[in-house]
Amino acid sequence: MKPVITLTTDFGTRDYFTGILRGVILQINPDIRIVDITHDIPPFEIKTAAFVISKAHRDFPRGSIHMVVVDPGVGSERRPLLVVSRTGFFLAPDNGVLSYVYEEDGPCQIYEIKEKKFFLPSSGNTFHGRDIFAPVAAWLSTGLEAHSFGPAINDPVKFPVSKPALTQGNITGNVVFIDHFGNLISNIRSSHLPSPDLKHLTLKIGEQTLKGGKRYYQEAVKGEISFTINSSGHIEIFQNQGSAVKTLEISLDEKVSLTL
Amino acid sequence: MKPVITLTTDFGTRDYFTGILRGVILQINPDIRIVDITHDIPPFEIKTAAFVISKAHRDFPRGSIHMVVVDPGVGSERRPLLVVSRTGFFLAPDNGVLSYVYEEDGPCQIYEIKEKKFFLPSSGNTFHGRDIFAPVAAWLSTGLEAHSFGPAINDPVKFPVSKPALTQGNITGNVVFIDHFGNLISNIRSSHLPSPDLKHLTLKIGEQTLKGGKRYYQEAVKGEISFTINSSGHIEIFQNQGSAVKTLEISLDEKVSLTL
Amino acid sequence: MKPVITLTTDFGTRDYFTGILRGVILQINPDIRIVDITHDIPPFEIKTAAFVISKAHRDFPRGSIHMVVVDPGVGSERRPLLVVSRTGFFLAPDNGVLSYVYEEDGPCQIYEIKEKKFFLPSSGNTFHGRDIFAPVAAWLSTGLEAHSFGPAINDPVKFPVSKPALTQGNITGNVVFIDHFGNLISNIRSSHLPSPDLKHLTLKIGEQTLKGGKRYYQEAVKGEISFTINSSGHIEIFQNQGSAVKTLEISLDEKVSLTL
Repeated sequence: MKPVITLTTDFGTRDYFTGILRGVILQINPDIRIVDITHDIPPFEIKTAAFVISKAHRDFPRGSIHMVVVDPGVGSERRPLLVVSRTGFFLAPDNGVLSYVYEEDGPCQIYEIKEKKFFLPSSGNTFHGRDIFAPVAAWLSTGLEAHSFGPAINDPVKFPVSKPALTQGNITGNVVFIDHFGNLISNIRSSHLPSPDLKHLTLKIGEQTLKGGKRYYQEAVKGEISFTINSSGHIEIFQNQGSAVKTLEISLDEKVSLTL
Repeated sequence: MKPVITLTTDFGTRDYFTGILRGVILQINPDIRIVDITHDIPPFEIKTAAFVISKAHRDFPRGSIHMVVVDPGVGSERRPLLVVSRTGFFLAPDNGVLSYVYEEDGPCQIYEIKEKKFFLPSSGNTFHGRDIFAPVAAWLSTGLEAHSFGPAINDPVKFPVSKPALTQGNITGNVVFIDHFGNLISNIRSSHLPSPDLKHLTLKIGEQTLKGGKRYYQEAVKGEISFTINSSGHIEIFQNQGSAVKTLEISLDEKVSLTL
Repeated sequence: MKPVITLTTDFGTRDYFTGILRGVILQINPDIRIVDITHDIPPFEIKTAAFVISKAHRDFPRGSIHMVVVDPGVGSERRPLLVVSRTGFFLAPDNGVLSYVYEEDGPCQIYEIKEKKFFLPSSGNTFHGRDIFAPVAAWLSTGLEAHSFGPAINDPVKFPVSKPALTQGNITGNVVFIDHFGNLISNIRSSHLPSPDLKHLTLKIGEQTLKGGKRYYQEAVKGEISFTINSSGHIEIFQNQGSAVKTLEISLDEKVSLTL
């Protein structure tokens, strides 16, 4: 498989930042494929980026290189990391943005990126995407070994990945992501359930009690709020042809409970 | 010509959905070129997507493969289709999103995508872009024949494509698309006119009577509202260096009439 | 180095315009790499586009081809230009959008694009990105010489590039760009300062007096407004993990003064 470099950032798409990442990479490896995951992570939202990359990387070829640059601490003492998981390579600041990867795709080898010969000579300390992560990704894509970029470490910053609580006949979790359609994605997974049949389950979120989940969105009538198993195997609360987040006015971390 | 896969969706750009489409395609055909048309179709707006793909596909190399995934019925009984037109291939749910293609680029061969060996093993029923359309697009781009993916059908869902009414000295149509600049694009085309000279025509839209169209935007003074022939040959109402849709407060489907 | 074509426009990403640019280019040169800088320049904002391309192009391989299409005068007598600088090629309408390039990367050879054999047969006069700039960029990327496309000229439209005023102990400049994070970027550069150490400097903007700049964002406490040297060597006013532009309610062109 040819290597691919993916980009996940909070840089937005209206400035020159994401273009520059590509320019830097192409100067080092003109043949590499570069794929945007998103540049629209809300500024500084490390947990959102962590969830996004945890879902995105699974469908890329093994050995792909994932740059995840949501980096409010850019220029400070926070370390730039190169992480090797079972599925591929990750380049990110050491701020917890790879917490799901450590949890779900480990054990990982983790290196602190320190070899300055691979960095761009920088102006200022505000754009390590350009000065460190992009050139290191590009050099890595040319076949250099992960240990070429710095020493192994074993104390990366992690945030606790919230998991649902399972009690007799009940699972309690949280909303961990809200997507573009306004769907509310919980950390309860189909693997937590005795069967993938949601018909006889009751879900509570906020003021709502939803009886009987659906197999797909259009099993609900237009405008109805219900729940289903989504494309990542998570229980997701949706509104058919509407936005559940707007209608329910629910935020991240809201409690979700499921009665079997 | 090398094949190209284009993507037109309502997935937005802030989640992991569009990145995953690319990852899936690249696992099957690592050499394919993938081009975004847009991921910013308003959620579930089939007619907007239908118009966008009808304009976008014409300027791509013959044989390009166009994925059009605006799919409120995902997971239901609605069929996934593979359509072969004079210009290329289209992959889309059977919900009318290819209505303009059937009308303008037919006759088409239409296949129901049914061969599960080309699908990804799916989790949930909410992301056929990943599980069906992306892998089928990728396999098609490797040179498989269209009939490999399922049986021919001849009853696709179509919505009626609205056409202007031509009477003595008068053409009456509608606004069929509003672009990023706020330009109002009608279904009246230059081919409906006796000549491409708009100077002596009068256009009515909403409360406005616009006398004499322009050859280009800056023939109007700054802030003036007028009309011209746009890049697809449609009569377009514009405001020079402004947004006609904001100034006129006009919606899709608004009546447009042109007096010769 | 392989050539690259970059795209900087105000076309937005929700219509079919940017996809079409790629389709046109790929019909002429199926092997070319195409990179988006941005399509989210606010409509008709020539000065914003001028700043963006002046920062973006430096990190691309020499000989890259930069299309800059912010073009309110499309279809009028304004000339389409092909500009050859020390770093690469630029295709743009003659409306000042390359003012920084002329100033910073000159001397440039400038050609008026006139050879219609390279144009697409156009419908309407509203989309020279498709009809002129994209095909010329593609033909240029196949190795044609710049003078193939039209005659040299030496009177391009330029706007005056504002420069800071340096007096004894004081530098006075302006905000010349506001980025996605709300950072306010001034035209004062680190090269105007006696040393890159900002610790003993005082900056005034609007009602604010900021004592002592920072080496990186997190040297400020969360929510603090301060200033630093940014990734292009400009003095930038920022709010740590916030948006300086929202908090200060400052606009483009606002005065910035720095006391040494």
